[in-house]
Amino acid sequence: MITENPPQRPTAAMVAIGDELLNGRTRDANIHHLGGWLDKRGIDLIEVRIVPDVEDRIVDAVNALRDRADTVFTTGGIGPTHDDITADAIGVAFGVETTERDDALEVLREWYAAKGEEVTDRRRRMARVPEGARLIPNSVSGAPGFAIGNVHVLAGVPAIFQAMLDALDEEIVRGPTYTIYTVIGTSKESLIADGLLSLEAALKGVKIGSYPGKAGSGGPLAIVCKSLEPSIAKQAAEAVCGLFRAIGVEPELVEGFGANRD
Amino acid sequence: MITENPPQRPTAAMVAIGDELLNGRTRDANIHHLGGWLDKRGIDLIEVRIVPDVEDRIVDAVNALRDRADTVFTTGGIGPTHDDITADAIGVAFGVETTERDDALEVLREWYAAKGEEVTDRRRRMARVPEGARLIPNSVSGAPGFAIGNVHVLAGVPAIFQAMLDALDEEIVRGPTYTIYTVIGTSKESLIADGLLSLEAALKGVKIGSYPGKAGSGGPLAIVCKSLEPSIAKQAAEAVCGLFRAIGVEPELVEGFGANRD
Repeated sequence: MITENPPQRPTAAMVAIGDELLNGRTRDANIHHLGGWLDKRGIDLIEVRIVPDVEDRIVDAVNALRDRADTVFTTGGIGPTHDDITADAIGVAFGVETTERDDALEVLREWYAAKGEEVTDRRRRMARVPEGARLIPNSVSGAPGFAIGNVHVLAGVPAIFQAMLDALDEEIVRGPTYTIYTVIGTSKESLIADGLLSLEAALKGVKIGSYPGKAGSGGPLAIVCKSLEPSIAKQAAEAVCGLFRAIGVEPELVEGFGANRD
Repeated sequence: MITENPPQRPTAAMVAIGDELLNGRTRDANIHHLGGWLDKRGIDLIEVRIVPDVEDRIVDAVNALRDRADTVFTTGGIGPTHDDITADAIGVAFGVETTERDDALEVLREWYAAKGEEVTDRRRRMARVPEGARLIPNSVSGAPGFAIGNVHVLAGVPAIFQAMLDALDEEIVRGPTYTIYTVIGTSKESLIADGLLSLEAALKGVKIGSYPGKAGSGGPLAIVCKSLEPSIAKQAAEAVCGLFRAIGVEPELVEGFGANRD
């Protein structure tokens, strides 16, 4: 990897909240989705922290990251049950009160009325939002997320998380996107590592990543070449094809990240 | 969730290293595996940070977490290519030199000799280990991980990561394990949320988590009851079954986390 970062890419960070992400119950899907969503919009996800449903851990992570990234996203903990404590924690992080808000309650009323249901006391809990936050629409299940400062508080359920994220599509500040090529060949990393090193020294403005598959050495190896300059990404990928051919391996060149991604 | 943590569970933290985990290329599998592996051994994973292949980000994350958790695990960045910088970063974090070590080189020599291959200069890179670290065996692809202080540096490829982790099974300090039951019913969270709140108030020493499925509200809802006391976990799970039946839903009670986990 070349260490020069393109200076003009905005940055983002994420705090994924929930005991279930830390104890082996749930394999998170939102980090992967957010990373790709941001990259396509020219934004670098610079750090993710996963923390349990414990207020001071949430507060610490959010406060550390909102100073370091242009935008922060949180996932999880905004439902109606006793273990949903994110709204309160965000209030604490920003030093403001978290209370039931009329605008959020109105959103819930309309959502449930359309289904002939009531906003029970329990559901009202989802209208609790920190002072000064603005609501983020939820087209899947009604109860809104919210944004305060540069922190966007979204649901943890993937379908709802994705819908809330898409609701931010218009407003998110974008940067220049990478052109990405992946070259896949069946080889050990060590056989082409020297060539990759020379290549990154010779070509300015390209980042090269080397990713063995799930099983490790000996299976398909993916070399990712990316650059803000499409022609440089292509040139790098073609050079990587040459490295594979030099060791007698016929490579496959695909646009984007291709398969072999887990 | 009851806020009393059992005081006697050891703690762990994780730093997952790699640009590919942050840009949507790779959906991490190691966090989920480690969380379950630790939980079965009575250890709480208290925080995970995902950072890119950038030395100072790795150093900051490792140094922050090694002070807060009994044990830290890192994944990724210990292969033979130019983007593998973890060994050097760990040396910097501990203020020691990272150099080629005779014992590590010997491990590589034996591994490759058994396959009739040489330790090329490029492969020798994988013998670079911080001063004072001890090696962790790699039964899948030879090149060792290492441990220094309370930090265990493991591979990112899941098959290798899992083998290295299992090599630590004997030495890891265990704590008391939870007994876990999951009650699954098709209901909205808000319909049983009040009951869950009363239940956690009534039963000491149980943690209750409420997890809608992937699609969110209206699909199968999983209520997880866990306790260090098997009888209390069972009692809680049976009470949760009662909550479902009270709203006309026939629940399914399973041991452990059951299905519906994504």
